[in-house]
Amino acid sequence: MAGQTSDEISDLELEAIYHFTIQLGKDAGQLLMQGLEARRSGTDPESSASEEKMNAVDIVTKTDTDVEHFIHNAIKKTYPTHAFIGEETYSKGSSKEYLVTDAPTWVVDPLDGTVNFTHAFPMFCVSIALVVKQKPVVGVVCAPMLNQLFSACRGRGAWLNETTKLPLLGKSIGPLPKNAPGKCIFSCEWGKDRRDSPVGNLHRKVNTFVNMAAEPTGRGGKGGMVHGMRSLGSATLDLAYIAAGSFDLWWEGGCWEWDVAAGICLVNEAGGLITTANPPQDWETCTIREAKLGGRLYVAIRPAFDGAEETARHSQERAVREIWRRAVSLDYSRPGV
Amino acid sequence: MAGQTSDEISDLELEAIYHFTIQLGKDAGQLLMQGLEARRSGTDPESSASEEKMNAVDIVTKTDTDVEHFIHNAIKKTYPTHAFIGEETYSKGSSKEYLVTDAPTWVVDPLDGTVNFTHAFPMFCVSIALVVKQKPVVGVVCAPMLNQLFSACRGRGAWLNETTKLPLLGKSIGPLPKNAPGKCIFSCEWGKDRRDSPVGNLHRKVNTFVNMAAEPTGRGGKGGMVHGMRSLGSATLDLAYIAAGSFDLWWEGGCWEWDVAAGICLVNEAGGLITTANPPQDWETCTIREAKLGGRLYVAIRPAFDGAEETARHSQERAVREIWRRAVSLDYSRPGV
Repeated sequence: MAGQTSDEISDLELEAIYHFTIQLGKDAGQLLMQGLEARRSGTDPESSASEEKMNAVDIVTKTDTDVEHFIHNAIKKTYPTHAFIGEETYSKGSSKEYLVTDAPTWVVDPLDGTVNFTHAFPMFCVSIALVVKQKPVVGVVCAPMLNQLFSACRGRGAWLNETTKLPLLGKSIGPLPKNAPGKCIFSCEWGKDRRDSPVGNLHRKVNTFVNMAAEPTGRGGKGGMVHGMRSLGSATLDLAYIAAGSFDLWWEGGCWEWDVAAGICLVNEAGGLITTANPPQDWETCTIREAKLGGRLYVAIRPAFDGAEETARHSQERAVREIWRRAVSLDYSRPGV
Repeated sequence: MAGQTSDEISDLELEAIYHFTIQLGKDAGQLLMQGLEARRSGTDPESSASEEKMNAVDIVTKTDTDVEHFIHNAIKKTYPTHAFIGEETYSKGSSKEYLVTDAPTWVVDPLDGTVNFTHAFPMFCVSIALVVKQKPVVGVVCAPMLNQLFSACRGRGAWLNETTKLPLLGKSIGPLPKNAPGKCIFSCEWGKDRRDSPVGNLHRKVNTFVNMAAEPTGRGGKGGMVHGMRSLGSATLDLAYIAAGSFDLWWEGGCWEWDVAAGICLVNEAGGLITTANPPQDWETCTIREAKLGGRLYVAIRPAFDGAEETARHSQERAVREIWRRAVSLDYSRPGV
């Protein structure tokens, strides 16, 4: 159905797009492994170079740009009328505006976890999503060094390696724990804003992290005593592991749409919940709204199942409010959102 | 050579032990995957249970104890004269004394990263080491959900999946970066001590973490501006990734010998450095001594190669001192060490 101009996409066409995206994710994953092999063998000196973007901890490699071109070309050929936003081409522009319209738009991060990639640490991936009317309807995340391909399509659920349904442990995980964030794995990232200022995001984040980690009687009653604190260096894989139920809670600010578009599709299709990181003024009682794709602030809660005393959704909303109760608002914004 | 009573082990015997340990690691890894599958399918309700050890974030599952029994039995059968210390049998005793003598002793963690395991997050592993005269001479770490088996043997180097030599990126990684900890991946864990007290380990750790993360002009000149902060929830895998060069720096306290014995062998054989976490009084100039197996405090530095202006070892020692400069001393001790 290439060439279609309507914003609507039929279920039949979506199925074809889903298969196309899975194959594209696998192919792009193979390119990442070839880039890694080139670094390993030293056959391509260019492949070992990296350039700074925002600051010394924000880098781009030749592999990022090569893989983005590969994905963009494949999409242009098969779906020439669809729009395309990729991290590397976008980042070269000076604007940080949110550019996703209601038209079918591919939102792509060719390499999430670039620092991990340059170290051959397996937590890197390619992320490809199709967004229609602001909703990611197809999402594929391929982490080739982990042999893990996560995929999801509107109405078709979320999957690991195409055969294992997410969440991995199925209904046995039930609702969120009664004393959540207790017994939860909390996933969080330190990010690129490293200003040593009490109002900078580094200190806002650390205060939140310590609230989540400390004993329940600590931090003026805000101690969360989470089971584990995890930082992988890839927002995309954080979301994939939320969808898998491997992480229970994720709280993050500063991401861009290409970091999260595919992951949001995974989380939604697996039965998770995703909303904003910053506590609304009426956080104890407010309606919990779905996160905006370009909002840069996210809380994600793992899939849940109804328990004897509580519905899945109720337990997830309870977990969101328990995070908000402990979260210091982050300072990330962008024009127009 | 089973039945030998001398503390010395010949190179020939060590070779046989190495192959035995690799196979044992693979077999134990398969048992971990079976335990995970039992949790997934819900066929064995017992497999989903967990018990608290020290506090609500310190747990043990049936899989931990089953896999330890399996490993212990295999070792008893093949090397009946060797001593054995496993996490689960040790932890049942009330003493926290250091029990490794100079005699050949197997030091085993059947499941490191138990919380990850219970969540089907891939960062869990089995760790098996043979320690002779206080030195780990064989180390095998199998992370079955990652398809990664790390192995090392005295004088034979360190390997991934038996075929790829560590560090993964080879000589191209050179010495540590000139401005280390800048450009480095710093690996650290939040741990189980969650007291909200300025003298507790939680705050000692967090102060160190923030020093490592902050901009160079921050923290009174202690800002490290590391490239990335990572927390996996497995000290054993932290060390394996140091040996692989996937992480550059690791700083941790509170581990026990079974968490680190195999990892120390990996790091040493790959060309890394391992010493203590707490800065000695004369940290700027002191001789850098190898970490004690039971010392509970560790700094590990990735393998390095000589550069044009600096030897590998010099760059590693420089990195150690840059960590010590930013590290708050941790408060972990034990009888007799």
